[in-house]
Order: sequence, then C-alpha cells, then structure tokens
Amino acid sequence: MGKVRIIEVHENVFSANESTADEIRRMLTENGTLFLNFMSAPGSGKTTLLTALINRLKDKVRIAEMDVDIESSLDAQRVADATGVRSLQIHNGGLCHIDADMTLRAIQEFGVEGVDLLILENIGNLVCPAEFDTGAHKNIMLLSVPEGDDKPLKYPLMFTVSDIVLVTKIDTIGFFNFNLENAEKYIHALNPNAVILPVSAKTGEGLSELEELILGTPPLKLS
Amino acid sequence: MGKVRIIEVHENVFSANESTADEIRRMLTENGTLFLNFMSAPGSGKTTLLTALINRLKDKVRIAEMDVDIESSLDAQRVADATGVRSLQIHNGGLCHIDADMTLRAIQEFGVEGVDLLILENIGNLVCPAEFDTGAHKNIMLLSVPEGDDKPLKYPLMFTVSDIVLVTKIDTIGFFNFNLENAEKYIHALNPNAVILPVSAKTGEGLSELEELILGTPPLKLS
Repeated sequence: MGKVRIIEVHENVFSANESTADEIRRMLTENGTLFLNFMSAPGSGKTTLLTALINRLKDKVRIAEMDVDIESSLDAQRVADATGVRSLQIHNGGLCHIDADMTLRAIQEFGVEGVDLLILENIGNLVCPAEFDTGAHKNIMLLSVPEGDDKPLKYPLMFTVSDIVLVTKIDTIGFFNFNLENAEKYIHALNPNAVILPVSAKTGEGLSELEELILGTPPLKLS
Repeated sequence: MGKVRIIEVHENVFSANESTADEIRRMLTENGTLFLNFMSAPGSGKTTLLTALINRLKDKVRIAEMDVDIESSLDAQRVADATGVRSLQIHNGGLCHIDADMTLRAIQEFGVEGVDLLILENIGNLVCPAEFDTGAHKNIMLLSVPEGDDKPLKYPLMFTVSDIVLVTKIDTIGFFNFNLENAEKYIHALNPNAVILPVSAKTGEGLSELEELILGTPPLKLS
C-alpha cells in the first residue's frame, strides 16, 4: 500500500479567503511549484483520471497529491497505490468545500519542498468548491459524458471559474445523449477562454494534450 | 410549453429547521398529500427518471412537482413539458441545499390543495441536501451506475438519511466498473433499512416496483 497521511481541517470563519489564496500562489510560485485544483461532481472520474495523468507525468516532474473528502481516505490511498507518489488525505469535517486557509494548513503540514507539481483533488461537488479560491494557479474541472451536456447551464459558477474543462469518459459518448458541440457552446458562453478537452482514462484519448498543457504552464520548471 | 412558476427563496438563519420540517409533514399528512424528496449528484438522471415516473402515475394520483436549482429553470420546464403536471421552479440564491423554511414558503406559494403526491427535485449535490430535513415523508436518492459503487463510502450521510436508494442508468452497467453487490453492502452497512432498487428510465426496468412502493406509502390516498 502507498503511504497516505490524513489531516483534519476545519473552517476558520474569520479568514480572508482571497488574500490567503494569493499568498499560497505567491509562495508556490517562488518555490517553482505549479498548483492545480481538480473539481467535479461525484463520480465524474477524478481519481481515475488523476491516476492515469500522474503515471504519465511522474518521471518528468516531481509530484505530490492532496485529496479532500468528508471522512473517507479512499481516494488518496488509490492514487498513492496506483502511482507511488506522496499523497495527503484532507478530511474537511463534513463541509462541501475547502477554502484557502484549509489548503494553506494542509500544504504547511504536507510540505512542498522539491515538489514541481502539486495536485489537489477537491471534494465531489459542482456548487461549493467553485465559491472558494484555494490558491491554485489553475482550476481544472471534469464534466463526465454520463452527467449530460446541460450542466454548464445548471452550475454556471463552476464552469466560469475553471481554466480547463475536461469532458471525461468520452469513450461512452455513444451510450448517452450528450452533444459535445452544445456543451462547448454553453461553456464558452460563460467562459470564452476555457480550454475544453475531451478525454478518456480508459482509452487514453486526450491525455497527451492534457500532459502538454500542464507541462507548459508556469511556474512549472522541468528539472 | 408546460406552465412553470419561479420562486426566489433565501435562507432564514434563525429558523429551527427540524420543527418547521415536522410542521410541514403534519400539514401535508392532514391534507392527504405524500411529499417525496428526490436527491442525488448532478447528472444522475433525476429529471429523466421523474418524468418517466410522473407519466406512469399521473392518471392514478394528482401530482405537483417542485424543482430546486441555483438559477436555471431547465428542470421544472422539462418536467412540465414532458408530463403536463403543475411545476414550480425554486431558485435558492446559490446555496447547495434547500431547508424546511424555504420548502414551507415554496409550498405556501405553490399551494397543495387537491394534490395527492408532491415531488421535490432537490439540487444536484451529495453533501448539503442530506443535512437539511425538508419536511418530506420519505427521502429517495439516486446513485447512477457511471458514478461508481464506492459513493456510499464517500458520502455516507446522504445514504444514511435516504429511505429508498435508486441505482439509476442500470442499463449501462456493462460499460462501467460498478458492482451492485458491493454498493448494496456499503449502503446497508450505513442504513440497514434502506430499500435499494435498480432502475432505468431508458428501458423501464424497476419502474413498476418504484410505482408500487410510492402508491403504498401513507398518507397517499388513491381517489
């Protein structure tokens, strides 16, 4: 079994989220660490995709992964077992989000010395996580084909704050009523600069493009 | 197009949620109205399933439907268009849940005179809606096959508070790594009395059983 640590964090209602988030970005940029926040609904395939992505990237950059969940440690353990990278499970005390203050405490506890790429697997939720800047350099969200192409209309903030939208489980598009052009139209109406990339962890479709996108994002420094 | 009304509701932080929920149940029981609260993650198929279910039930009982969403009115409109029943869209001001006070105001605005079955389609979220008693007689949740069989381990409260767990999109089980026995084991460990029913709005599987379950639940009175 891979090594997973667990941290319990609880919300500090007095924190000024935005300034803490900016402080996290400044600190990680100085450290040369790219911080990516992955968000999605439950069951959209975050853990499976991250496992595939980390296995492609881990010989090129030094990676650490943090996973937020209400109380289980399943996801961090899966990522650690399947990739061998250092993984931290964050328990957030039943909240539907993680904020910058909680993220900062997790990063301080975890340590990012020598880490080129820090990945946060956020809690499965299309509402709350979008409301809190975690201090990540980029937000990446997953919309899985089985969820339907109307989700940008129903959860607009999540699509507005995401720099990259991964359309996951694209290999199942034949079985569901999902129109990729409609999804792209809805997403770009909310967020004209969003990069939309269809991917499948099962077939590997789109993973090289995602890998390239990530490796080309500052402050990542290839050693 | 079916007729959809829209109501804006916002949280009253001073309300005593449990007593309001009990008051809603008492009032609806006296009125002979069964109130069902449908919850799930985004994209699990609530609107599609409710449309199929309402079309099977609408000649037997008088139905009204309320739909909660952050800001869109898509779901209430879809249900109204596809079934012809009276539908109310509740906008909850960006929250990830609806509480008993908000539900009570919606019910008062909507009116339930002559309604045998009142259906609430809750917001797509596996965390927050589970924390608020809406005053429904029964909670029914949907877990779709593409989401994975591990969800009870990750979102335990939702599975604990649900009387019926519908395993939706069961027709796609061949395409996904979903073990129904594992799902049942995880759910019953949290909630031994939960009724678990595999269903598919596409093939109709499980819908007669669901119809029977609902028609047999007090205070429903067949006219």
